[in-house]
Amino acid sequence: MAETAVRPTLDALDPAGRALMFTEARTANTFADTPVTDEELTSIWELARWAPTAANTQPLRVLYVRPGEGRDRLVKYMSEGNQAKTAAAPAVAVLAVDTRFHEHIPTVFPIRPEMQDFYENNEELRRNGGNFNAALQAGYFILAVRALGLAAGPMAGFDAAALDAEFFGDGRFRSILVVNIGHPGENPWYNRLPRLDHEDAVSWA
Amino acid sequence: MAETAVRPTLDALDPAGRALMFTEARTANTFADTPVTDEELTSIWELARWAPTAANTQPLRVLYVRPGEGRDRLVKYMSEGNQAKTAAAPAVAVLAVDTRFHEHIPTVFPIRPEMQDFYENNEELRRNGGNFNAALQAGYFILAVRALGLAAGPMAGFDAAALDAEFFGDGRFRSILVVNIGHPGENPWYNRLPRLDHEDAVSWA
Repeated sequence: MAETAVRPTLDALDPAGRALMFTEARTANTFADTPVTDEELTSIWELARWAPTAANTQPLRVLYVRPGEGRDRLVKYMSEGNQAKTAAAPAVAVLAVDTRFHEHIPTVFPIRPEMQDFYENNEELRRNGGNFNAALQAGYFILAVRALGLAAGPMAGFDAAALDAEFFGDGRFRSILVVNIGHPGENPWYNRLPRLDHEDAVSWA
Repeated sequence: MAETAVRPTLDALDPAGRALMFTEARTANTFADTPVTDEELTSIWELARWAPTAANTQPLRVLYVRPGEGRDRLVKYMSEGNQAKTAAAPAVAVLAVDTRFHEHIPTVFPIRPEMQDFYENNEELRRNGGNFNAALQAGYFILAVRALGLAAGPMAGFDAAALDAEFFGDGRFRSILVVNIGHPGENPWYNRLPRLDHEDAVSWA
């Protein structure tokens, strides 16, 4: 029977795309001097924002920090081992969770606007839902950086409370990850660390 | 100056790849009868596992559930609105966090094996690190499903405690997301929900 228009078919990603996004991609630790443009940074988000979140809540927020005064303010909150990398990155993204993401629900989930009140009245669900979905989106973000042909250097080592006080003064946004972004520099990769054996990570039922 | 071998260059993902992974990808709510093979399921993980986690901890675990007895056991733990979708999915992945992920640190992070003790002695950091990095990996996993030319249907609505007792009896793994996997069926997409305006999600410093 012929396919009809209502049953879409999907192609798989080609080998070059799989290598770029997953199998050959590496975390960059040095960057070339080549700048990263505001247009490139905007394009990263234009890709990442389409991937799914629970009830379309989209709790992730992105603060792009560029060389100069902004980056100087940021570097001092990074842990010692990360400061040189961030100081040399042509762009940096501070990824944060909007702890009051549910205020956008009437806009982003108009089929069930009452979910706003549900989250307002359930602090634990709000906190867990925000944290989980923002982390999910951080995963999409890292892969979107790679999709632009840029190298990502995600780092969890920074003083989040101090960074938040400096950049997100009102306490609504809480930083979760800092990602250096740029073109790879000289000898940018460490030796690749091993991944878990298949049988340690995957099971079947 | 000529590029040297130690400064890699990266291509960007082509338009078809960006559409497949991000801009045209949709969450599937119906599936064709076409089976999903064990080889395809293994290939999803072979992509997803290479994306980065903090200290290479890789706390995500995957339980693949196939049609038959396994899927029958799973469906009853899904929330009412998700049961029909899971019952029709040719494959389902239960994504879980290994709450004792740090036991693998001597293998996965041999450059600092003492991190195992650090996590052992810091329950809050262990819990937060496991939850955050497993969610990050769940994001990679969803995009890896798409890279295989398969449709993903992620769902947060299920009875996690009951599911964990049934499938992960010893309490070590804690489920975080259930993902239906298959080829899209008839009219598989709902109307696309709006994403936040750029100025609501992105800021600059």
